[in-house]
Amino acid sequence: MSDQQLTAILLLSCPDQIGLVARISKFIADHGWNIIDIDEHVDIDDDTFFIRASWNLDGTSMSTKQLKEAFVPLGSELNANWKINFRHRKQRTAIFVSKYDHCLQEILWRYSLGEFNIEIPLIISNHPDLESLATHYNIPYYVFPITKSYKREQEEKELALLHKHRVDSIVLARYMQILSNDFVNRFPNRIINIHHSFLPAFVGANPYKQAYQRGVKIIGATSHYVTEKLDQGPIIEQDITRISHRDKLDDLIRKGRDLERLVLARALQYDSENRVLVHGKKTIIF
Amino acid sequence: MSDQQLTAILLLSCPDQIGLVARISKFIADHGWNIIDIDEHVDIDDDTFFIRASWNLDGTSMSTKQLKEAFVPLGSELNANWKINFRHRKQRTAIFVSKYDHCLQEILWRYSLGEFNIEIPLIISNHPDLESLATHYNIPYYVFPITKSYKREQEEKELALLHKHRVDSIVLARYMQILSNDFVNRFPNRIINIHHSFLPAFVGANPYKQAYQRGVKIIGATSHYVTEKLDQGPIIEQDITRISHRDKLDDLIRKGRDLERLVLARALQYDSENRVLVHGKKTIIF
Amino acid sequence: MSDQQLTAILLLSCPDQIGLVARISKFIADHGWNIIDIDEHVDIDDDTFFIRASWNLDGTSMSTKQLKEAFVPLGSELNANWKINFRHRKQRTAIFVSKYDHCLQEILWRYSLGEFNIEIPLIISNHPDLESLATHYNIPYYVFPITKSYKREQEEKELALLHKHRVDSIVLARYMQILSNDFVNRFPNRIINIHHSFLPAFVGANPYKQAYQRGVKIIGATSHYVTEKLDQGPIIEQDITRISHRDKLDDLIRKGRDLERLVLARALQYDSENRVLVHGKKTIIF
Amino acid sequence: MSDQQLTAILLLSCPDQIGLVARISKFIADHGWNIIDIDEHVDIDDDTFFIRASWNLDGTSMSTKQLKEAFVPLGSELNANWKINFRHRKQRTAIFVSKYDHCLQEILWRYSLGEFNIEIPLIISNHPDLESLATHYNIPYYVFPITKSYKREQEEKELALLHKHRVDSIVLARYMQILSNDFVNRFPNRIINIHHSFLPAFVGANPYKQAYQRGVKIIGATSHYVTEKLDQGPIIEQDITRISHRDKLDDLIRKGRDLERLVLARALQYDSENRVLVHGKKTIIF
Repeated sequence: MSDQQLTAILLLSCPDQIGLVARISKFIADHGWNIIDIDEHVDIDDDTFFIRASWNLDGTSMSTKQLKEAFVPLGSELNANWKINFRHRKQRTAIFVSKYDHCLQEILWRYSLGEFNIEIPLIISNHPDLESLATHYNIPYYVFPITKSYKREQEEKELALLHKHRVDSIVLARYMQILSNDFVNRFPNRIINIHHSFLPAFVGANPYKQAYQRGVKIIGATSHYVTEKLDQGPIIEQDITRISHRDKLDDLIRKGRDLERLVLARALQYDSENRVLVHGKKTIIF
Repeated sequence: MSDQQLTAILLLSCPDQIGLVARISKFIADHGWNIIDIDEHVDIDDDTFFIRASWNLDGTSMSTKQLKEAFVPLGSELNANWKINFRHRKQRTAIFVSKYDHCLQEILWRYSLGEFNIEIPLIISNHPDLESLATHYNIPYYVFPITKSYKREQEEKELALLHKHRVDSIVLARYMQILSNDFVNRFPNRIINIHHSFLPAFVGANPYKQAYQRGVKIIGATSHYVTEKLDQGPIIEQDITRISHRDKLDDLIRKGRDLERLVLARALQYDSENRVLVHGKKTIIF
Repeated sequence: MSDQQLTAILLLSCPDQIGLVARISKFIADHGWNIIDIDEHVDIDDDTFFIRASWNLDGTSMSTKQLKEAFVPLGSELNANWKINFRHRKQRTAIFVSKYDHCLQEILWRYSLGEFNIEIPLIISNHPDLESLATHYNIPYYVFPITKSYKREQEEKELALLHKHRVDSIVLARYMQILSNDFVNRFPNRIINIHHSFLPAFVGANPYKQAYQRGVKIIGATSHYVTEKLDQGPIIEQDITRISHRDKLDDLIRKGRDLERLVLARALQYDSENRVLVHGKKTIIF
Repeated sequence: MSDQQLTAILLLSCPDQIGLVARISKFIADHGWNIIDIDEHVDIDDDTFFIRASWNLDGTSMSTKQLKEAFVPLGSELNANWKINFRHRKQRTAIFVSKYDHCLQEILWRYSLGEFNIEIPLIISNHPDLESLATHYNIPYYVFPITKSYKREQEEKELALLHKHRVDSIVLARYMQILSNDFVNRFPNRIINIHHSFLPAFVGANPYKQAYQRGVKIIGATSHYVTEKLDQGPIIEQDITRISHRDKLDDLIRKGRDLERLVLARALQYDSENRVLVHGKKTIIF
């Protein structure tokens, strides 16, 4: 695991031009670091260049701060949006839940196996129901009941708590409340939601019921970043399962559960490994 | 093939009650026929019973007309909608196309292998482009260019031609015209369309472009019966394929072609084997 | 749930002949019961008929014993293998595990949701590792370490325990011991195993390593009934997932875990709902 | 399309070391070319580095020969296996067929749409059956009947013909003869086969029959490069489809046809776009 602790990951986007890969890989090589993985993409619709590069920092004497500073000149030259993360600096992720346990179960179990490169400092819920599950995994569980009149107030408390725990990102694991725009804008593209339909089909409430009534032959689940517009954020991952006329609404819900937890887990994995770049309404998954 | 020629297929729906399978299977057994396949379903939302039964007519001296008449009393008793088809009486199916050849290619190739239990007496198009393909398979090809002002007139001619060829059903194999309600109502649930999206997502024009702009990770295709409401008819079959940020609009179109032809072929196969019962906005596929 | 408690399920196979569906459905109707579901199949290779029928026992005054006796004459006439189960008489299923927890987690979680029509009276393991998980779900956990010299002795003790708990069937949830033939023959087609490959590819030990070395593009998992021949029993369910050259052996193991637990869960569900008939080396899944 | 005509594609493998991406991308940038796509991989089992890079040659005055020569020093320094292809220099691919038409149909239809970056100068068969299909697409069709005693002689004639047509690669589109080792060794990793099973399951003859008898729930198809050992070559692509007890051997063959043609088409596409690197018994698909 020691080599994992010394891995840097660059995510960068900038206007396309000749020689970008060369300049970025030269920056890495000039410091004597070895590239582990490099992947790039050009969006030909608007001539934007995207890259993810990871490299081994073995033997370096630079601090993470120095390393980031070392990249500033090149980043400016390229007029780039960029960030550098380090594998040993795990993202701090809060989980929001309500009453359904399947997504939380899945995340905590995989978390216990080390499948995600995250720390989960706390779980927040509007219901007390899943506390024992949190306890089983030794994670603090906070309850903030939400009512229309207290929503703003409760969100303020949640934000304070998230700040105190230095939370970088949030996973809505079937959290059944709509976050306010103020809240969402505090975590731009840092809130991952799971929607239980194949978006953009069946936006909003009760998508399984909608799917059942429409008589589709396939149901889906979609994980996306939360934006101000409900169920319209950039899609990270989707998957589907086949159904038939024999499947009643309950069967859709049951089969959908398996989709939801797998799709959400994959989205969280991509995000936690710094594989996702958001570009407008879309994502690039490296 | 001789046993195939002596197979009867019943499709029936009626209000649910005790003993339906027993009474229907007794009707078959009492005539000395052997059931090949039986499949039933009860829609618990409205207590409706559905059944498909096929049986071997070997050694029977009844004509198909007599056989149908023999079922009338039971059908009435059960207050049922029903039809009996015979495998050797192939459905007569017209294909409508425009300029894209992939769905037509697929259907004609499978037709030449005997995969569908249909006869294709003619192909109708609003463009002359695919005539040579029709000729290759020795199927008459008629061109009816469609303009706004002539649409009604042309549809009348098409209907006359379909009538003359005793056509039972129609496949729209990427036919790029919207049929008038008058036309559609002449073939209730007898017109099969292929829509190049995962309905109900991306209704209407340019679904691949819509999918590309939304940034979905999966695209689909949907085959459905045509009703008066565009892309709202009962869904027969759907399938999907995975895409990524690397796929440009052209790639979606290319990958979608493979979906469209397979999904349409499956829908036509189910329909031609009398496996489909329409129930409101949904289908039961036996 | 009350209607569920009064459901009978017949599984039957016999030599094919005319009128079987009629006679069986007449038996049900003559008692005033309503068929919920009927599904049949004929294996044309050896003229064998298979049927699964379930019906509602509402209002009946017969005991389950009387009901079974009532079917004996027809069963004999048809020269059939048959059994009748009742939904309210849940199958008693023991789980065998070793150290991997993913399949056990999945089964216990679904069990807690009521997804399987089973009771789990005990868990048996050759290691103490997963006891806390069993405790979390309040299921007794027994440890029988296995060594070559003590295997027979330990199996005897396990069999005694299974007998005491009136166990009907066993799930090997990644149990890493090979059961003796004596043991297997005590539960013919009543032991469900999960093998972590797409059988018959990669029989035996370390299938992921075999798959990795062969360079396949897809890995699979297979759930089957255990017979005397290793990994050769009748297959109940299989599924696959796509991999690429980027996936190292660890990734195959990780991705395979998700397959294993879903495939095993589906197999157990089919089995627990009396949907599986074994026919030689194959299964019919109704 | 003009930019397509000026694209170079490098495929390279060499012992891993620090700075490889930097040095290769610098080579490209130093000539003023813009990278379109770059993808790399390190096999950690034997420390081997693999890269595929494509770049735009717009405005260059170098010939393809000069360009290759320009890379020689770097290739030598890195102790690399490498080749550079140009999109406008299409690979010349011969198709071998026997009597089944589905794979040939698929390839020729996609070829007519421009989906593959190949030229097909000729089709070779051991039977005359598919000549009319070749004629429809205006491709010369040569028949070399194969018998045990004439096999060597016929293969010599085929090789002469392939040489005359400057053929780079061969697609066995359900060609039902086993090529001699001599023949195979003339086209190392340049012969693409489609095997109608999920390899390594069901090697050899009649895989669908083997699958049917084993009672699998999923069937597959595998496209691989041909080596001396039957069905053991490096796998390029695989896919599967679900079957059930209702599917008879004929259904497996019918469903398998759809798999075979799609899997073979994908393999040919990857190969024709220079996306495949062979590493021992495995492939890297960029």
